[in-house]
Amino acid sequence: MNQAQKKRSLSGIRSSGNVHIGNYLGMIKPALEYQKDYDCLYFIADLHALTTLRDKELMHQYSMDLVATWLALGLDVNAHTFYRQSDVPFVTEYAWYLSCFTNISFLEKAHAYKDARANNKELNHGVLAYPILMAADIVMYDVDIVPVGKDQKQHVEMARDFAGTVNAALGQDVIKLPEPVIREEVMTIPGLDGRKMSKSYNNEIPLFCPEKQLRKKIMSIKTDSTDMEAPKELDGTLIGDIFKFFGQEQQYTDLKSRLAAGGMGWGHAKEELFQVINDYLKDARSEYDKLRQDEAHLISVLDDGARKATEIAVGPLNRLRSALGFKEVEL
Amino acid sequence: MNQAQKKRSLSGIRSSGNVHIGNYLGMIKPALEYQKDYDCLYFIADLHALTTLRDKELMHQYSMDLVATWLALGLDVNAHTFYRQSDVPFVTEYAWYLSCFTNISFLEKAHAYKDARANNKELNHGVLAYPILMAADIVMYDVDIVPVGKDQKQHVEMARDFAGTVNAALGQDVIKLPEPVIREEVMTIPGLDGRKMSKSYNNEIPLFCPEKQLRKKIMSIKTDSTDMEAPKELDGTLIGDIFKFFGQEQQYTDLKSRLAAGGMGWGHAKEELFQVINDYLKDARSEYDKLRQDEAHLISVLDDGARKATEIAVGPLNRLRSALGFKEVEL
Repeated sequence: MNQAQKKRSLSGIRSSGNVHIGNYLGMIKPALEYQKDYDCLYFIADLHALTTLRDKELMHQYSMDLVATWLALGLDVNAHTFYRQSDVPFVTEYAWYLSCFTNISFLEKAHAYKDARANNKELNHGVLAYPILMAADIVMYDVDIVPVGKDQKQHVEMARDFAGTVNAALGQDVIKLPEPVIREEVMTIPGLDGRKMSKSYNNEIPLFCPEKQLRKKIMSIKTDSTDMEAPKELDGTLIGDIFKFFGQEQQYTDLKSRLAAGGMGWGHAKEELFQVINDYLKDARSEYDKLRQDEAHLISVLDDGARKATEIAVGPLNRLRSALGFKEVEL
Repeated sequence: MNQAQKKRSLSGIRSSGNVHIGNYLGMIKPALEYQKDYDCLYFIADLHALTTLRDKELMHQYSMDLVATWLALGLDVNAHTFYRQSDVPFVTEYAWYLSCFTNISFLEKAHAYKDARANNKELNHGVLAYPILMAADIVMYDVDIVPVGKDQKQHVEMARDFAGTVNAALGQDVIKLPEPVIREEVMTIPGLDGRKMSKSYNNEIPLFCPEKQLRKKIMSIKTDSTDMEAPKELDGTLIGDIFKFFGQEQQYTDLKSRLAAGGMGWGHAKEELFQVINDYLKDARSEYDKLRQDEAHLISVLDDGARKATEIAVGPLNRLRSALGFKEVEL
């Protein structure tokens, strides 16, 4: 199947923190699997990150980290398109158009906004407008599908709603409506404290940190104080839960039976957990470390991506501009 | 004084209806007077018009009407910059940046929004975001002054507030704060029914309509049924009020004394009012009619303006992009 016949898929990732194992297993890995059957667009949502991140060094660093991460994990930038949202600012224009067709009360009802509003009196306007920009991200690229976890399904539904309102006013062919593809299998990755791994809980295991730091993180997992000699149950422990994501089934049952036999402490189990994670990541990490040293190359990858993304976006953008009575953009 | 030394002034006009005499006297005429001492930017606020106008033919038509109108009235596009907002869509990007620094409750407190919200449950998000886009219009061009009527002073103050918040976070030189210049002398132009001339009251006298239509509009002014022979007082009548804007003082006193002498009906006074308005407008109208027939020329004027505006905007935009950690835009 050649590229032109493939359906187009889009995934975005916020550049608002260091990439951790939860990001990898929950989002990056499954998103990269779409490369096989889809024409994939991936973007760094740095305009969205701006609602919470106001540090220019970090803003730049997180973008660079992400390009290097995705490349190290197998992103094929020749076959697919990887770009930084802020490098294709057409999207903010598209978002303005959607804004003029979107009822405010609809935005005010969004779960994320209601939660944020309840907890924060200093909320900026970007937080309210967030789903509009996200909708523009999606529909400006004529995508067929948007693979999301269950918790993000509302965003794609909102994008469809906003676009549907525009089409009802201007014509059914103005905006192509995307389909959400719910990745039912998406797992919640537990962090070092057993809660969902998340920057906001400060319980992350970084994806590509030095071995020493990785070991230290793993060794910091809290365990019960069962006597070293006593038999232990791996199932249902945090060590076991994380192990399953990285080790083979055989490795897991092996560790489980050795723990059950007694005479093996949790410290040893954590050492084995570290080994299995480290084995899993070390090749990609070494590739990452190499890539991360060459920012000029990473920027050129983003520039290429921005060019490709712009070429895709200009058609859908001009359909909308033209339906509104504005002049078409020329590249 | 050469152009480079002149201070920069900015004025915008919404493209959401036919241009009437109230627009001319209240906004266009005073704005054009700034050409003498300032480096002027004038723009057609068609992105703002989109909050209420969803007709692509009208959207285009109103823009064309406005270019032809301003040119006919003495706009010098070689010395100054006249552009259509939608032709410089950087402004929506700039608005997104401001959004991420602007407290929502600040927007919700804006008078125009509160009024609109009270009267309209189907309010679109563009109405809430309106002052942010307007602020971007102003600060993205490093303008020195924004001449406004008293009723628009809040918009410039909001722009200063939004920009001040960004500067407090990112550095005092990131955004140049504009000064509002309140045109105290701005008059309210009465419409055909005596209320303020406004599209929403349907009481407008079009600026450049055919003579016949202009006469008909003027003759439709309601007057009292005083007997034709009776002496009449011109002061304080709608006919008198409008006459003052177009006639010389001498013409006014002359008409006033003839009415006071008796034997002259209101119909004759309206005929003289028509004459004085028509004399005032006819040269510009004939120029307008000529210009309005050549849309290709009008579009080329807008294209030139967009190029000049873009060149001005890119510097301030890049200062902000750079302070946020985004890549600078290259033209």
